[in-house]
Amino acid sequence: MDIQNYMQTLGRQARAASRLLAAASSEAKNTALLAMAADIRARAATLLAANAQDLEAARRSGLEPSMIDRLTLTEKGVEAIAIGLEQVAALPDPVGEITDVKRRPSGIQVGKMRVPLGVIGIIYEARPNVTADAAALCLKSGNAAILRGGSEALHCNQAIAECVRNGLAAAGLPEHAVQVVDTTDRAAVGALITMPEFVDVIVPRGGKGLIERISRESRVPVIKHLDGNCHVYVDDEADPARIVPIVENSKTQRYGTCNTAESLLVSRTVADLCLPAIGTMLAGKGVEMRACPESLALLTEAGIAADKLVAATEQDWSEEYLGPIIAVKIVAGLDEAIEHINTYSSGHTESILTENYTNAMRFLREVDSASVMVNASTRFADGFEYGLGAEIGISTDKIHARGPVGLEGLTSQKWIVFGNGEIRR
Amino acid sequence: MDIQNYMQTLGRQARAASRLLAAASSEAKNTALLAMAADIRARAATLLAANAQDLEAARRSGLEPSMIDRLTLTEKGVEAIAIGLEQVAALPDPVGEITDVKRRPSGIQVGKMRVPLGVIGIIYEARPNVTADAAALCLKSGNAAILRGGSEALHCNQAIAECVRNGLAAAGLPEHAVQVVDTTDRAAVGALITMPEFVDVIVPRGGKGLIERISRESRVPVIKHLDGNCHVYVDDEADPARIVPIVENSKTQRYGTCNTAESLLVSRTVADLCLPAIGTMLAGKGVEMRACPESLALLTEAGIAADKLVAATEQDWSEEYLGPIIAVKIVAGLDEAIEHINTYSSGHTESILTENYTNAMRFLREVDSASVMVNASTRFADGFEYGLGAEIGISTDKIHARGPVGLEGLTSQKWIVFGNGEIRR
Repeated sequence: MDIQNYMQTLGRQARAASRLLAAASSEAKNTALLAMAADIRARAATLLAANAQDLEAARRSGLEPSMIDRLTLTEKGVEAIAIGLEQVAALPDPVGEITDVKRRPSGIQVGKMRVPLGVIGIIYEARPNVTADAAALCLKSGNAAILRGGSEALHCNQAIAECVRNGLAAAGLPEHAVQVVDTTDRAAVGALITMPEFVDVIVPRGGKGLIERISRESRVPVIKHLDGNCHVYVDDEADPARIVPIVENSKTQRYGTCNTAESLLVSRTVADLCLPAIGTMLAGKGVEMRACPESLALLTEAGIAADKLVAATEQDWSEEYLGPIIAVKIVAGLDEAIEHINTYSSGHTESILTENYTNAMRFLREVDSASVMVNASTRFADGFEYGLGAEIGISTDKIHARGPVGLEGLTSQKWIVFGNGEIRR
Repeated sequence: MDIQNYMQTLGRQARAASRLLAAASSEAKNTALLAMAADIRARAATLLAANAQDLEAARRSGLEPSMIDRLTLTEKGVEAIAIGLEQVAALPDPVGEITDVKRRPSGIQVGKMRVPLGVIGIIYEARPNVTADAAALCLKSGNAAILRGGSEALHCNQAIAECVRNGLAAAGLPEHAVQVVDTTDRAAVGALITMPEFVDVIVPRGGKGLIERISRESRVPVIKHLDGNCHVYVDDEADPARIVPIVENSKTQRYGTCNTAESLLVSRTVADLCLPAIGTMLAGKGVEMRACPESLALLTEAGIAADKLVAATEQDWSEEYLGPIIAVKIVAGLDEAIEHINTYSSGHTESILTENYTNAMRFLREVDSASVMVNASTRFADGFEYGLGAEIGISTDKIHARGPVGLEGLTSQKWIVFGNGEIRR
């Protein structure tokens, strides 16, 4: 197969479909989503068989257990995919929303209309559910999608793709509205990210290495999420009753998520009071603390088990552990906390614990991250928790969309002018 | 000079300054802008002398007259720069605006806060006024700026840069908030667009070749404007009294601007009625028509001078003439008009002339351009006409900001969470 040619064909087809999709009614899009959900349920056995085929090949090729885990589709997983499609159908359609219409001195009325981006290329790992989720979000937001999933999930992805196509057909929507790349050749990714004439935005999901490479080589704008090095800062005037629960939830509710706290900053004036309790909780949960000299001394003195305490290195301030480890640093106060976060954070999510109004507002304004919180767990940084209904990813970029990206993040606004024959003087 | 090193230093300084600027008060920013305006006026003689130096060098090196024209600064031009700075001072500060705060079932309140992008790199041609305009817009929107103007304007740019620095100092703002690249070495551009660690967005302003090269090579997101191939479509039910005035204004009010119409589409049912009058008006103004076979026959029959009529080639549908030429095509109706525009347009601005409600709404929704208008001249696509107060450029990209980009386009929104000790269940 000539990959370049094949991808160009997908691109051309996607561009043509995107024109029709932009004008599609909410009803047609919802009909398609519900038909997809029904078809997913009806073909559960086919999906599971395709997945079994992928799993066997993966085991034979010695794929590591965590990857096998992600690749595995269960009956419950199939049902979750169907429910996900129905949930997206139930969300309000963002396309066509008209806002901010103002009459200008010239007489024209100027406003904004929310419109799809056009064609979205999504590159992801071997997770079968992403195929359906991404297809649903792109479709509902009026975008054509080209999906390139991990090669280990090829059979299952193609089986899901068939359900998606059936759903599109049932609603009379263009068959090329969602296309799943049908090759494991890696050149397909290179082609997808260098067709600005056919693809408007790339959303890579996966390991940091993959995302960095795609960002570097893409000739199309990328909405991406690199690291989640999230901070909790315990300010001078933190409510003592809230400190341990929020640190505990931010760090230990789940270790592997991008909104998990990886660094704890504590203001010097309250370190004596709160670090022993925090350290006891963390050690009790088996979390290793990579501590600055001052906090190391304080935690040691408080009797925290030595095997849970490690002297932090410079590297620890930037680390995303994705496991039972946390960096701990005592800071002089709010200024140093903000400075530290703006220097080392990946720009994902940070939370201040404080009862001081001015410090809370300064933290919200001055910390340059996608989500900034007061007195809440970093674990809330999530499309569902924020009320987006679903998310295609969490952006750590600064233009277009920051933080959880839902339907709105897959659209932009164009200007519209309601005129009455006006000409410019 | 080691350009790479020099640019890295500017980048590092800009990043540091951007932290302080993001937290700067509106009052400090406005004080700086007004002080800059005062300093520009006070140093008018110095600016004009620096410009004279640039002009002499430009003439010696044989720069073409149109470039010399753009490079020339007059006393009136100096006053216009000062007034521009004062106008930006008078605009509302977009930074810190909090919107869409909603309480979620978990108890947290989630909303959005408008924040600066960070550091903006602006690459432009030899137009002295852009130095002050761009500095003002970046400063007001809380962004640090690195400005790289055309080498032909180096002396004048540096003289303006001094006024900018004086204004910053007068307001106690960081001196590196606005930095003007002080070298004509072209490697400076290459360095500026490949420092994602220091620069958040690049705004190139200039010829298409320059912008294409920057877009291709940039490792930083680019807000750009390529072509302005704008269309006016005369629909079946256009108000006859509005047709000639709007076509005239869209095409002939100014030939060299990006929002000037370059293509005219006319629905077949009204071509007989309106094309002769349009052709007479255009020919009378000395505008050459590159016409499709059908319109060519019609215009010839109507007695339009043969030297104003040329048979259109495929190339004409994509052309941005920036002069007294317009492409003319008769189409079957709205569907073909939308199809033609979405195929050939540069995505800048299109206008439909119609009294038909459904056609107007379909055109607004289905035409995929940054500005879409009903019954108005394309010449209104402009930051001032839209009420933005000022513009840094007009984007033909689809993500982040489309169309005229003002202060808001130089910001983005982060998520903020007002919590009350909530943890995630």
